[in-house]
Amino acid sequence: MTPPKTTLADLPIRDDLRGKEPYGAPQLDVPYALNTNENPYPPSEGLVKALGEAVADVAGTLNRYPDRDAVALREDLAAFLNADTPGIGLTGRRVWAANGSNEIIQQILQAFGGPGRTALGFEPSYSMHPIITRVSGTRWVDASRAEDFGLEPERAVAAVEEHRPDVVFLTSPNNPTGTALPLEAIEAVLAAAPGMVVVDEAYAEFRRAGTPSALTLLDGHPRLIVTRTMSKAFAMAGTRLGYLAADPAVIDALLLVRLPYHLSAVTQAVARTALAHGAELLGGVEALRRDRDAIVAWLRAEGLAVADSDANFVLFGTFPDRRRVWEALLADGVLIREVGPPEWLRVSVGTPDEMAAFRAALKNAMKESS
Amino acid sequence: MTPPKTTLADLPIRDDLRGKEPYGAPQLDVPYALNTNENPYPPSEGLVKALGEAVADVAGTLNRYPDRDAVALREDLAAFLNADTPGIGLTGRRVWAANGSNEIIQQILQAFGGPGRTALGFEPSYSMHPIITRVSGTRWVDASRAEDFGLEPERAVAAVEEHRPDVVFLTSPNNPTGTALPLEAIEAVLAAAPGMVVVDEAYAEFRRAGTPSALTLLDGHPRLIVTRTMSKAFAMAGTRLGYLAADPAVIDALLLVRLPYHLSAVTQAVARTALAHGAELLGGVEALRRDRDAIVAWLRAEGLAVADSDANFVLFGTFPDRRRVWEALLADGVLIREVGPPEWLRVSVGTPDEMAAFRAALKNAMKESS
Repeated sequence: MTPPKTTLADLPIRDDLRGKEPYGAPQLDVPYALNTNENPYPPSEGLVKALGEAVADVAGTLNRYPDRDAVALREDLAAFLNADTPGIGLTGRRVWAANGSNEIIQQILQAFGGPGRTALGFEPSYSMHPIITRVSGTRWVDASRAEDFGLEPERAVAAVEEHRPDVVFLTSPNNPTGTALPLEAIEAVLAAAPGMVVVDEAYAEFRRAGTPSALTLLDGHPRLIVTRTMSKAFAMAGTRLGYLAADPAVIDALLLVRLPYHLSAVTQAVARTALAHGAELLGGVEALRRDRDAIVAWLRAEGLAVADSDANFVLFGTFPDRRRVWEALLADGVLIREVGPPEWLRVSVGTPDEMAAFRAALKNAMKESS
Repeated sequence: MTPPKTTLADLPIRDDLRGKEPYGAPQLDVPYALNTNENPYPPSEGLVKALGEAVADVAGTLNRYPDRDAVALREDLAAFLNADTPGIGLTGRRVWAANGSNEIIQQILQAFGGPGRTALGFEPSYSMHPIITRVSGTRWVDASRAEDFGLEPERAVAAVEEHRPDVVFLTSPNNPTGTALPLEAIEAVLAAAPGMVVVDEAYAEFRRAGTPSALTLLDGHPRLIVTRTMSKAFAMAGTRLGYLAADPAVIDALLLVRLPYHLSAVTQAVARTALAHGAELLGGVEALRRDRDAIVAWLRAEGLAVADSDANFVLFGTFPDRRRVWEALLADGVLIREVGPPEWLRVSVGTPDEMAAFRAALKNAMKESS
């Protein structure tokens, strides 16, 4: 007789986790993966070689722990941000890095959130903000956006004044809607917020011309944290490197909660090599912005509603049965994302071939439904 | 006029973090680093080349996210454990991996600890257990060890029955004392514990002959978690790869709290390559065990007290002013660790040259103090 199988329900997990499902888009093997906002342009042969060599260079000392504070990598990231947004004058002391911006967000909540504290965001927004908030024992408050997914300064300030959150999440460009926030909204929240203000700029490099980064607000705002990632524009999703810029005192706070040696010697070497090849890796951004604007125009011409996009994805709708549309695209080999407001779907901007496949599949799906 | 500098005290960090210092041994550039229990034997030239090639092999797709569940790596880790401890018959479904065993411990506490819950350990023990416990919002209870650092089953069970913890940490071999637990103590705690029992076996591969692993207890104990690392015997501290073996339902629980894509494609490739070269990497273990036994004997011959060691480090004392001894060794270029009970010091087992330098420096230090 085999013993009865243990299930998750038999284990003494935290009560608030009971009945929950693991987060994550399905990882399916499809011809056209347009569901996780990856950059479709892979590293060149030259960069592949350089990455292998960089790891071989550190491999001889992998029996030793890495630099716990990743000093050289943080200096490289500061230099990158200084080039991205001239005039901000960052140093490595004002930059911090971790295994993806998810870990960055988790460290922020561990330092400034926790039991008895509150974090506030404006949904629909990045779905990991509330998940990581709750796992950290912090209460989550959703102050939702307007019908058009916008976030006017008055609305944001009113929510902050009502809930007095310890941490506010602003996402610019917002995911999954795609639109960047005006600097005035961020400034208004900074003036009203009693705690930390996190501006998640995971998609900042894709923003439309003339949209300033919250990095320009760092001076004089020691409670502002701007997060970035190498997963999107930087085409390094597989490397898992997220980072932030903030006042040095914020970094001191994160040092109290970060797991020692959280960033491997290999990750540090790979990220530094990628940064040294930044021009190549970011080389696809212009094409992606152009193709994004083209797909926005095409979707609108098809009669669909489309959110303005400053990112490498587009939110479009509305479909009374979005699951059916999602499935019809998948049947044609095109995987997009069922995420955000109920009647909308999100597509990542891929290569011209991938977007042609998406357009054809969507036309098919809409024909079937009409 | 420059604006006043913001300090950590000015920021709204969690109250329980106020006044805390970041964890971590000093990272000093010294001739003899014997402070973090690293394996002193670096990878061979052949393995260095293989690691570079493995990363070059995945680098071409680094624009894509990694396998979120690290399935192939977990199968390789299961195969390694099956070879290490014959008869346990693990599959990848019963193994989980993360960025160092610190992240493994954090995920366990996020799933099974949290606000309103308690974790219990027997100090002196691995100092990250209470730190990660507290950062996760879990209450920490220290049920201390006996004078000789031992942990008798009766003492352990009494502490568990008194505090009814949601998570119990047992460390075998224990750090910083070095001694492994008898299986009977672990079985007694498993029988008494109302929640999860974590056996931290970071140093298991160094244990003295005849000491069984808690892996042999997994069958029939769905609340047992055995954690391991590639940082110590496996000589891969720079790679940051910790793992655990447990019931599949435990893995399901961890999937609810793990950060999506926590393990990079590069880490997965490097760890798999290291596992494929396991015989080479573990090749230093026999020498380290022999040199450990020799340093234990030498320290005892010098009239010092020494805890029995199943690990790649040795705890010795007692010194009324251990800081002075630690500093004297450092002045001779030998960095050891000031950790654990107040009058004791810990030295990692290095190469024969490193141990000769340690012996000479310690003799100097003791001469000065007599």
